[in-house]
Amino acid sequence: MCSVQSTCRCPRHTVIFLRFRRNIQYHTHIMETLIQPRILKGFRDFLPEAEIARTALIEKLTETFRAFGFVPIDTPVLEYADILLRKSSGETEKQVFRFTDNGGRDVALRFDLTVPFARFAAMHKDELYVPFKRYHIAKVWRGEKPQAGRYREFMQCDFDSVGSDSAASDFDILLLMKTALANIGADAVTIRVNHRGVFNRFLSRIGAREHSEEILRTVDKLAKIGADEVKAQLAAITQSEQKASDILTYIAGGARFSDTLALMQELAGGPAEDTQRLAELYAMMRETGIEQTFVLDPSITRGLDYYTGIVYETFLNDLPSIGSVCSGGRYDNLAGLYMKEKLSGVGSSIGLDRLIAALEELGSLKTKKSYLDAEILCLDASLAVHYQKTAAQLRALGISCEVFPDAKKTGQQYAYAEKKGIPYAVLIQKPDAEADRMSVKSLETRAQTDDLTAAEAAALIRGGA
Amino acid sequence: MCSVQSTCRCPRHTVIFLRFRRNIQYHTHIMETLIQPRILKGFRDFLPEAEIARTALIEKLTETFRAFGFVPIDTPVLEYADILLRKSSGETEKQVFRFTDNGGRDVALRFDLTVPFARFAAMHKDELYVPFKRYHIAKVWRGEKPQAGRYREFMQCDFDSVGSDSAASDFDILLLMKTALANIGADAVTIRVNHRGVFNRFLSRIGAREHSEEILRTVDKLAKIGADEVKAQLAAITQSEQKASDILTYIAGGARFSDTLALMQELAGGPAEDTQRLAELYAMMRETGIEQTFVLDPSITRGLDYYTGIVYETFLNDLPSIGSVCSGGRYDNLAGLYMKEKLSGVGSSIGLDRLIAALEELGSLKTKKSYLDAEILCLDASLAVHYQKTAAQLRALGISCEVFPDAKKTGQQYAYAEKKGIPYAVLIQKPDAEADRMSVKSLETRAQTDDLTAAEAAALIRGGA
Repeated sequence: MCSVQSTCRCPRHTVIFLRFRRNIQYHTHIMETLIQPRILKGFRDFLPEAEIARTALIEKLTETFRAFGFVPIDTPVLEYADILLRKSSGETEKQVFRFTDNGGRDVALRFDLTVPFARFAAMHKDELYVPFKRYHIAKVWRGEKPQAGRYREFMQCDFDSVGSDSAASDFDILLLMKTALANIGADAVTIRVNHRGVFNRFLSRIGAREHSEEILRTVDKLAKIGADEVKAQLAAITQSEQKASDILTYIAGGARFSDTLALMQELAGGPAEDTQRLAELYAMMRETGIEQTFVLDPSITRGLDYYTGIVYETFLNDLPSIGSVCSGGRYDNLAGLYMKEKLSGVGSSIGLDRLIAALEELGSLKTKKSYLDAEILCLDASLAVHYQKTAAQLRALGISCEVFPDAKKTGQQYAYAEKKGIPYAVLIQKPDAEADRMSVKSLETRAQTDDLTAAEAAALIRGGA
Repeated sequence: MCSVQSTCRCPRHTVIFLRFRRNIQYHTHIMETLIQPRILKGFRDFLPEAEIARTALIEKLTETFRAFGFVPIDTPVLEYADILLRKSSGETEKQVFRFTDNGGRDVALRFDLTVPFARFAAMHKDELYVPFKRYHIAKVWRGEKPQAGRYREFMQCDFDSVGSDSAASDFDILLLMKTALANIGADAVTIRVNHRGVFNRFLSRIGAREHSEEILRTVDKLAKIGADEVKAQLAAITQSEQKASDILTYIAGGARFSDTLALMQELAGGPAEDTQRLAELYAMMRETGIEQTFVLDPSITRGLDYYTGIVYETFLNDLPSIGSVCSGGRYDNLAGLYMKEKLSGVGSSIGLDRLIAALEELGSLKTKKSYLDAEILCLDASLAVHYQKTAAQLRALGISCEVFPDAKKTGQQYAYAEKKGIPYAVLIQKPDAEADRMSVKSLETRAQTDDLTAAEAAALIRGGA
């Protein structure tokens, strides 16, 4: 067995673990010193009900990604620090969990799923086909100041399609965003779309392209500081009242998608690939009957210079105040940090924790306390073996069930079943056992049906479930 | 939009990310310095095929745990170091990823799922009901020397039932082990069970209890160094040839479960709770028809003093050499480090990475390259919008499909579909589009059926899938 001892990785095996256990024995039974159980600020435990809700959401999203041809990948939680961030970026330092490992390596916990994907794409470029469509739902870490809805350990859900710069790829992501959100109960959403290319053409035309970054940042403040203040700032940046008002006219857009597109095209100096792309996407939205979900919004800029094509943000119609729950855009150089080849793509990311908080607030977060259909009560300790046999029979008939392990008061067993949200109790006394019969009681209606075979019990439970 | 910018957590949003992106732009487009993409020793990327296989396994296991009444929980990957390990344990230090975070806290990555579960149970004891049955499938980290089948980042799968010291709870775990492994294709397994209590009674009776630890460690070496050497070492430890041979007789056991149990009971000085427990478990195994899977093996000791009741290890009949793939036992004080209340329980842990390696070696690891039923080829760029409409129709009919985004050579599109393991291609030329018809081609048989409605195409694809 020694080979097992030394190689098995299960926690009950390894030397490290057993040594640790010995310490517990020692400290608790001899010194009686207790450690206060606690977790780090900004980190969370998930109790069953919360974890079941989160899992259900993730399973629905996964199912949708798969149906659209996206495949899963996984990357290490820990990477070389120089892969995740340049030494130069002082801002980053403060937020990233970075340290020197026992081997003297400079390592860090990933702070998003995009940088690891870029590294992954460069490292495995010869093994991958294009278009490569991947989804990745996993934890990331940032040492930010914890606050409401902000955590240091949180989950991200990314999906990207790289290797094709086509309207089809853009639409693939846009439709997937709408479908995935609808499948998890967020069906009333508005996806605000824009195209960086058109805006850049427009800025060049009015001779303000060299200020694009400042302008983008100023325009971003529209909702916060209002049009007048933005206009004043734009005038200061561009040294021109005219340019400032032109920019605001552009940003304002029109009534419907087509109006806005016409206005953008005109102000940008006529049709081009970028406006063609928007027109094609709109045609696809209409063909598939989802155009109501989308708004062409020239004020959506998505910050700095990373994006080169369409950009988008998603707002819940019933709770827009929480901000975008799903955003992204098209980029033309995913892995430029790691390889010479340019890899263009389009992707989106769902802020899962924020979305869960929102769905909870809207009362549309589904959860349950367990996955069980029935609890087999322990009414007679001498029937312990028979109860196990019954559980096996019911499971074979497709019923999720468990045996209550101890002959506690029936009231306690019912209370337990309710804490676990189990709809049915199976009752078996000695005479039932001898006749191979059972009673089934609905814990909701309290209605009880006696003298059932396993098949009849299963049918009754399935019928009610 | 500024509020969005500053609060949204998606990787395409935050300042940290955008600053970082700016660096990429800067470094790649101006300095042209590339970082060699690489990952840390002992860490792994999972490409789609490997990740799909691992996910399928995890989904099957999860399904089984749920059907047995186990519920999921989650805990942080990062915890206070003093929670995960005592400063005193020097051995542990070397293996754990431990560091001081930016807030000056002494933190570490979890090295198993049992210690966090103990902390969790103590911290939430008032919110939990007993018996509390939880499963937790997640990554853990150990800075051990990487070697074949050994990684620094690997996945563990734990399931425990705490709060009841009953044969029913023990059996719950044993049956779940067998069922879960069978459900992932490991149906030919032998689960070797023993009871620490009987062995301790036996040692007390022959007056060797004070050497139990040494004896356990020596007995553990039986398979490795052979009976004679073990006997010699036992004689040295117990200062008695007689005791040494008694121990070997005990360890040898009998032919069948009942014979071995009778022998153990006799050598331990008669029946007691521990032998009763084994007898009851055996009765449950027979009643549910799974006794063939279990062997009562007095040589299974599971190392040091943590376990207090039954212990077990699981071996693949076709590949026993890789060691135990699922092991555990009963303990009487899970959270003794964090609270005064004693919490007894029984649990098991699957070494997922080892199991996957084994199933691969046995050729029983199922995987695929994507989850798609069909690829809609792009045969005519002018039909891009129509292809999207067709995809929507087919998805509404339950077909997982995607549109190839670019009008590349048909050969390239077929090659892509094969790389993704997609069984069917949907072909639509202009005349088909105008008649709202399509052709479906099996990429396996190359058989093509023309002039189909969406419903007919879906039926054909479903029929073949």
